Amino acid sequence: METAFAHVRSMCPLVHNITNYVTVNDCANMVLACGASPIMSDDIGEVEEITAICNALNLNIGTLNERTVRSMFAAGKKASELGHPVVLDPVGAGASGLRTETALGLLREVRVSVLRGNISEIKTLASGSGTTKGVDADVADQVTEGNLDSAVDFLKDFAARTGVIVAVTGAIDIVTDGAGAYCIRNGHPAMGTVTGTGCQLSAMLAAFLAANPGNFLKAAAAAVSLMGLAGEKARARMTPLDGNSSYRNYIIDAVCTMTPAALQEGAKYEMR
Amino acid sequence: METAFAHVRSMCPLVHNITNYVTVNDCANMVLACGASPIMSDDIGEVEEITAICNALNLNIGTLNERTVRSMFAAGKKASELGHPVVLDPVGAGASGLRTETALGLLREVRVSVLRGNISEIKTLASGSGTTKGVDADVADQVTEGNLDSAVDFLKDFAARTGVIVAVTGAIDIVTDGAGAYCIRNGHPAMGTVTGTGCQLSAMLAAFLAANPGNFLKAAAAAVSLMGLAGEKARARMTPLDGNSSYRNYIIDAVCTMTPAALQEGAKYEMR
Amino acid sequence: METAFAHVRSMCPLVHNITNYVTVNDCANMVLACGASPIMSDDIGEVEEITAICNALNLNIGTLNERTVRSMFAAGKKASELGHPVVLDPVGAGASGLRTETALGLLREVRVSVLRGNISEIKTLASGSGTTKGVDADVADQVTEGNLDSAVDFLKDFAARTGVIVAVTGAIDIVTDGAGAYCIRNGHPAMGTVTGTGCQLSAMLAAFLAANPGNFLKAAAAAVSLMGLAGEKARARMTPLDGNSSYRNYIIDAVCTMTPAALQEGAKYEMR
Repeated sequence: METAFAHVRSMCPLVHNITNYVTVNDCANMVLACGASPIMSDDIGEVEEITAICNALNLNIGTLNERTVRSMFAAGKKASELGHPVVLDPVGAGASGLRTETALGLLREVRVSVLRGNISEIKTLASGSGTTKGVDADVADQVTEGNLDSAVDFLKDFAARTGVIVAVTGAIDIVTDGAGAYCIRNGHPAMGTVTGTGCQLSAMLAAFLAANPGNFLKAAAAAVSLMGLAGEKARARMTPLDGNSSYRNYIIDAVCTMTPAALQEGAKYEMR
Repeated sequence: METAFAHVRSMCPLVHNITNYVTVNDCANMVLACGASPIMSDDIGEVEEITAICNALNLNIGTLNERTVRSMFAAGKKASELGHPVVLDPVGAGASGLRTETALGLLREVRVSVLRGNISEIKTLASGSGTTKGVDADVADQVTEGNLDSAVDFLKDFAARTGVIVAVTGAIDIVTDGAGAYCIRNGHPAMGTVTGTGCQLSAMLAAFLAANPGNFLKAAAAAVSLMGLAGEKARARMTPLDGNSSYRNYIIDAVCTMTPAALQEGAKYEMR
Repeated sequence: METAFAHVRSMCPLVHNITNYVTVNDCANMVLACGASPIMSDDIGEVEEITAICNALNLNIGTLNERTVRSMFAAGKKASELGHPVVLDPVGAGASGLRTETALGLLREVRVSVLRGNISEIKTLASGSGTTKGVDADVADQVTEGNLDSAVDFLKDFAARTGVIVAVTGAIDIVTDGAGAYCIRNGHPAMGTVTGTGCQLSAMLAAFLAANPGNFLKAAAAAVSLMGLAGEKARARMTPLDGNSSYRNYIIDAVCTMTPAALQEGAKYEMR
């Protein structure tokens, strides 16, 4: 994981984001924190041109609308043509037909490299049967030590079927390309009290893919582990007066001050 | 107030927000800080579906546009049908015809539970005669100890006439349903140097209403008092190097770390 | 510079912003930090009315779209008619035809007072030959001690030709009206790891122009110097655990807590 992270810092890839307006500032600062450079652009009149000068594309449907959905398809197809890695974050898939159908459409028409979501969003896309609590995973869906094996099997099958690397984040994160699966145990439950840690990870994932063209699976696992480890280090820094807003800042800070060696040392994962 | 807050923490209501892009991230983190869960969605193709899976709706016209105004009416009518509480924050009513008319239209066509704004916005909607300084209250309008009785009478009359709970925030906050009025003296003047404390309160109000269906007036007063008390506690934490940006974080932190008992102890209010 | 800043604090001008959704919250808090008041509004149905009640207009094309571009032209023309100062931040000019043409069109049709960007953006607009790395300046373009004289000549010529004050920020900042040029050496390289410091400066610039109608050049130089000095003071405050997210907060804090006298003392500039 050390090398994958070091490549981001040395390459400083440019990441095109079409993302929601809730967490967009945090996404930009997170991309900068990991060593890459962000650009946000969502108008149909420029997204193909913008994505062409970038090294990766991050599509996030968190506050999708008719206008930006069209731009996501246009940018996604252009990035596919150019062989750029594409991350899809299907925020709230399952919460509305528009979200579910947009995410499924993008999976069909765009060569998505990594699909990152919570387990309910991914289940919705894989089988049409996830139930979401808005933009959070449903408690009944959550991955635990008890159901980890069946979750891994389910996600491997979905990844193999679609040819997309699937990254599911939660208490235990799973990143799989259908053959191998990283089970990652970094992170802290308090990350759920900060809006947009998933969105930030997706933006960072795009940077990791751009800098590691030879090995998307390892790169994706490194980004997921880095986000979780940052959540741990940020948590350790909190004082009794700190709440979720300071925690938000500390998580981004922790990515910014993290070294590739520290990631290597702190990453907690196994292969299944 | 203790009970009203405890209900939010135990229910964790899901709040649908159609809100401005200036303060939307802070609104999301504030909803999480108080113990609820936010979802932002403003496309006409999904707002009715989204609001149907939520427990409350927060409408904020801070950066309204033709597209989102239509979504506000659609979501607002759906929430009304379903009996969901609706908060309306008429940001900048009085600053443009579009804002004033949109807010008045929403008050007519949507069953608004709580209208929260500064005194100039509310005067504009009540009598057509407020003057705003952009999105801030005009000095001439401000509620002081000297004009408190007449302000309470004015707001009680407006609340009684419209059947809407009115929450006006400023140096002294007033929350009234037309019969009783809470006059709340929590808060700190420095809150005016942070953008969006009003927006954050409106989002939090929606969570408090959802969790306290039996008593909207008390729930609204509790949320208003909580916001002010958080402003006091955050202020007490500031160092000489801290300015409005750290203060912004500390206010959200203070809500996050506040207990219902601490709210009960710190709330400063009287009934008129 | 002391006086220019003191005028902002005493006048508290109202600044209308049509700006990108990435950094809009930071822009609002920065405008408040310097002593002014922000309003964000981008709908064609109200922008002329809103700009008419404001003291200055800030146009930022960072996430431009067809809808907001129309609003920028409408608001810009109205502000021109009313004699209000207008700042243009051509974010990413050179990265897409849409951005370059929108910025050039606004320069033609709106009486822009100050154009603020990085050197690549300004070169693109002046000569059609800048190359941008997304929204950051290209390394090959950067102003250094070695090429400062030629950069100053180039920018003086562009400013004289267009009648617009040009403010280019980077390792050395240059602010010129075609006759004199301020070369400002405040700031810290780490400011490049925070998204939106340029956007924040542009919003603050609008406030400084509004409060100093008699001397836009000095006012612009004061704002540029203030931003850089805030970057220095914020940097001095950082602990080993702090990264770009805390730095972001500290920069806004530093403007908020800065006195006009401290700006005067800390400003590092020469005229060329």
